[in-house]
Amino acid sequence: MNKKAALAAAVAAGLALPATHAAESKPLAAKPTLGDVIKASKPSDWRPLDPDNTLYMDLTSGRVIIELAPDFAPNHAANIKLMAREQYFDGLAVIRSQDNWVAQWGDPDEKNPRPMKTAKQTLKAEFTVPMKNVRHFTRLPDRDGYAPQVGHSNGFPSARDPKTGQAWLAHCYGMVGVGRDNEADSGGGSSLYAVTGHAPRHLDRNITVVGRVVSGMPLLSSLPRGEGAMGFYDKPELNLPIKSVRVAADVSEAERSKFEVMRTDTATFKAAVEAQRNRGGPWTKVAAGYIELCNAPIPAREVK
Amino acid sequence: MNKKAALAAAVAAGLALPATHAAESKPLAAKPTLGDVIKASKPSDWRPLDPDNTLYMDLTSGRVIIELAPDFAPNHAANIKLMAREQYFDGLAVIRSQDNWVAQWGDPDEKNPRPMKTAKQTLKAEFTVPMKNVRHFTRLPDRDGYAPQVGHSNGFPSARDPKTGQAWLAHCYGMVGVGRDNEADSGGGSSLYAVTGHAPRHLDRNITVVGRVVSGMPLLSSLPRGEGAMGFYDKPELNLPIKSVRVAADVSEAERSKFEVMRTDTATFKAAVEAQRNRGGPWTKVAAGYIELCNAPIPAREVK
Repeated sequence: MNKKAALAAAVAAGLALPATHAAESKPLAAKPTLGDVIKASKPSDWRPLDPDNTLYMDLTSGRVIIELAPDFAPNHAANIKLMAREQYFDGLAVIRSQDNWVAQWGDPDEKNPRPMKTAKQTLKAEFTVPMKNVRHFTRLPDRDGYAPQVGHSNGFPSARDPKTGQAWLAHCYGMVGVGRDNEADSGGGSSLYAVTGHAPRHLDRNITVVGRVVSGMPLLSSLPRGEGAMGFYDKPELNLPIKSVRVAADVSEAERSKFEVMRTDTATFKAAVEAQRNRGGPWTKVAAGYIELCNAPIPAREVK
Repeated sequence: MNKKAALAAAVAAGLALPATHAAESKPLAAKPTLGDVIKASKPSDWRPLDPDNTLYMDLTSGRVIIELAPDFAPNHAANIKLMAREQYFDGLAVIRSQDNWVAQWGDPDEKNPRPMKTAKQTLKAEFTVPMKNVRHFTRLPDRDGYAPQVGHSNGFPSARDPKTGQAWLAHCYGMVGVGRDNEADSGGGSSLYAVTGHAPRHLDRNITVVGRVVSGMPLLSSLPRGEGAMGFYDKPELNLPIKSVRVAADVSEAERSKFEVMRTDTATFKAAVEAQRNRGGPWTKVAAGYIELCNAPIPAREVK
């Protein structure tokens, strides 16, 4: 096996019994990898993206597909869809790329900001929602430092606190949040960002998180880093134009991207997570015996 | 405060008392931010990079500075320095960029690999080392899912297990590891990678980690993602040439980069971590009350 194939084995994972911290000595048995789990999955293990809760952000470099999470941010999701339908974003730009942090888009012209039509400029924050509003929650058995409970809610990494009865989305790689000023209720969705680095979980419950990038992350994560403060582009010509943001439901069948996401309330998803938590051999020598929320895979795939 | 300044406040952090999970209601008092802690630091809170354990990887796009960690991987660090001194890397390339994973460099020509001179092609793995070999360890009080204890060892995020008496470097953003085949002892440092995404901590103790990128991460993290399997570039012209890799000590004073890193065994570093663990207002509404190892800042700065 050459070096390329070798580091590959680090991606492909295994189903294993929990390992102890002193497991270095014995070779690990080979196990089904994450790829194997996906291969063995049934059609019912997957769900299509709901066109009414999916955004296509078409950049000059390609399409970013965002799944909205109305369970967690109903008002912001609705407002952002309205903005898209009122062509608010069309011609705006990705204006910021800060290393190991976020790529952010919105209006590059702070002096002459584009006016809103009927969409709201600001909304009451949706940092958390009552747990009962969230339709599915599959808890990870693994403990988390940032929240009493973590797991997946219909495809979104999320957390909750039974004491307060609140649930919220977790700031993992690819999650999309609403920029705001100091006041909690000062955002509305006109300025959005996607996480492009190590999960800044300390932002959880401080920002309205509205969804997740399901496809197209490299179009945001590999942008040149901005040289201005906090990674904002210091020259207008560096801004990456947004051709349009559309609700998938409004896009003709021919122009739609067909994606499906692995359901997160199934035995198959549990197996996918376990394949990452406890990898089998031959490449892996020590199985972690643990998975941190943002390392749990949420497989998505294009349907041809 | 505009949107740009607002998300800025998410970066600048505060010193606060631990928050409970139900702290949403009360506004947080303003506290010194990470920037404030750095500003108030004394010269003795910093240490210069040791030129004998620092690599300059000069790409056509700029310089990546890597601090080696001989406490954790003495044989690999020595071997990689020998490779650098024997010009092994000069003219090789960054050949892989996989989203939310790694950028990897080495010999693009698998069929006619560049021969080694006196450096070793492979070495015995250094996945872990005896705890007593590590000169400093400042433990984080925060619990970790992947290891019994985590903290910082002279500027490197690391973990240890008192039961086995072993210590190891943690796969955080920017850490540099040694590619290998299935066999534990099949790497030697000719193929290296830097973590460019969410920390893949499940690789800990499975790979010899040799150091950390102290400067120049954007040169690696913002590379176009490879379209080949696992992010390898599928066309040779996409490989990014390495002009040279040099040990800083071998570079003339005029061509040296002067960097210093915040010491991690000081009260100032403790304050820097706390500023991230419990941010103050006005932007932050809920302090996390916790910090995950790979979210702890390890400030570095250029000395003019």
